[in-house]
Amino acid sequence: MFFNLICLSINKFVKYKIKFKMNAFEKLITASEKNKTLLCVGLDTDIDKIPSQFKGSLNGILDFNKAIIDATSDLVNSYKLNFAFYEQYGIEGMEILKKTIEHIPNHILKIADAKRGDIGNTSRSYAKAAFEAFACDAITVSPYMGEDSIKPFLEYKDKLTFVLCLTSNEGSNDFQRLSSNGKSLYISVMEKTMKWGSKEQVGYVVGATHPNDLKELREIAPENPFLIPGIGAQGGDLEATLKANNNAPAMINASRAVIYASSGLDFAEKARQKAIEYQMSM
Amino acid sequence: MFFNLICLSINKFVKYKIKFKMNAFEKLITASEKNKTLLCVGLDTDIDKIPSQFKGSLNGILDFNKAIIDATSDLVNSYKLNFAFYEQYGIEGMEILKKTIEHIPNHILKIADAKRGDIGNTSRSYAKAAFEAFACDAITVSPYMGEDSIKPFLEYKDKLTFVLCLTSNEGSNDFQRLSSNGKSLYISVMEKTMKWGSKEQVGYVVGATHPNDLKELREIAPENPFLIPGIGAQGGDLEATLKANNNAPAMINASRAVIYASSGLDFAEKARQKAIEYQMSM
Repeated sequence: MFFNLICLSINKFVKYKIKFKMNAFEKLITASEKNKTLLCVGLDTDIDKIPSQFKGSLNGILDFNKAIIDATSDLVNSYKLNFAFYEQYGIEGMEILKKTIEHIPNHILKIADAKRGDIGNTSRSYAKAAFEAFACDAITVSPYMGEDSIKPFLEYKDKLTFVLCLTSNEGSNDFQRLSSNGKSLYISVMEKTMKWGSKEQVGYVVGATHPNDLKELREIAPENPFLIPGIGAQGGDLEATLKANNNAPAMINASRAVIYASSGLDFAEKARQKAIEYQMSM
Repeated sequence: MFFNLICLSINKFVKYKIKFKMNAFEKLITASEKNKTLLCVGLDTDIDKIPSQFKGSLNGILDFNKAIIDATSDLVNSYKLNFAFYEQYGIEGMEILKKTIEHIPNHILKIADAKRGDIGNTSRSYAKAAFEAFACDAITVSPYMGEDSIKPFLEYKDKLTFVLCLTSNEGSNDFQRLSSNGKSLYISVMEKTMKWGSKEQVGYVVGATHPNDLKELREIAPENPFLIPGIGAQGGDLEATLKANNNAPAMINASRAVIYASSGLDFAEKARQKAIEYQMSM
């Protein structure tokens, strides 16, 4: 009896330690397997677009987010929080962001979609903001300022840093495709930044709107996690994206298509249905 | 008598309108002339580096910032607020940021050094955050995501948007100097983004650590305002910078060299002395 109790305690302790020690990359793999999906829901919540019952005050955004999380957290591997949508409301918006993050179950990856990047000592503060103050597991960063702007994020060994590579928007053609020594800038960004950290630390943002390029990038980085926005409202093709991704670790992001699936009282139910649709297609 | 009163009122009204209508670019020019300087002080305040009397609580950062502003606001044309230094403390840090901005006299330019940039609808929210929620006159943005990531900032016609061009850090060599069609990326960034807005709307971040390149960039954009970091702690040469800038509109930024000029009780006095030194050299 006493021996059984000890075994139970050790077992619990080990499970606790395993859970405690899981890094962001492992969390992504585990959540993808558990929920059988690569879906990442973007909580890019806009007060003008949420159902009318939430529009009375800014806190309606928090209530809406909580309802979406409750309706979808068994159907996603991650949530992506675009900081801009909260920063636009100043302090009150940041409070809603923080409470939204706290509402996400711990085994689901929380991505600070913040696209930060600055000189070394400043990036260190951004890393602290995303990983400590807002307790996220991952962040998106811009590569423009180079190595010392990204390294401080990688000092958090258990976190994931997604470098902007080939983004989903039309503006990606302006600079990302400029060719130097026969290589597009986004390819140079991937090749260089891959050397700055392991596949468990460095991921890439690659838009679903470029499936052929995604395939090429998967050949360069077959195992690094990709955060793939552009499905849904931006018009990316899910089937082509899945094929190009070749079963590698990924978060395929849909924001507006899921969270605004209905503007009626059934918004959460419809968001869940849309997430199930994506899950079935993945 | 009555006529005089009317004249006085019209005069006051016109002055009020002129003041009210001044855009960020005009504010920069006016403050530079009034205070006879191009100095921009960076309020990149780190609690570990401020005098011990301020270290008791986070609010000490606000008290320190206020003292620095009071000691230097007649010696600068702008203050640069690096958002990272405040975001790292979460909500409380953002409150300090907001109150710091509110303490800056209205005729001095307030720059949100945030290096933002995202797809169109998201950049719109970042613009709202910087220009409305935090009431800044200007922002720094990253060009990596191209035109639709920068345009939303330019929709605020009376604000200034500083595009990262050639940054002051070592990492600027990683991607910014990649050459495409015989042109470095940072040159392509300048040439392309110049077409997206007027000289009163689009400025550039060019590090003081590259005076020769600064000279070349001044030839391409002789009238756009430059935000020039890298003097002081980062080792940029003030004299060479001034020569390369060729009397064009600029904010030459020093952060650590001014705000941490002394860690003693005389910190404000020493910060003022350092600002006067810079003013004299400019």
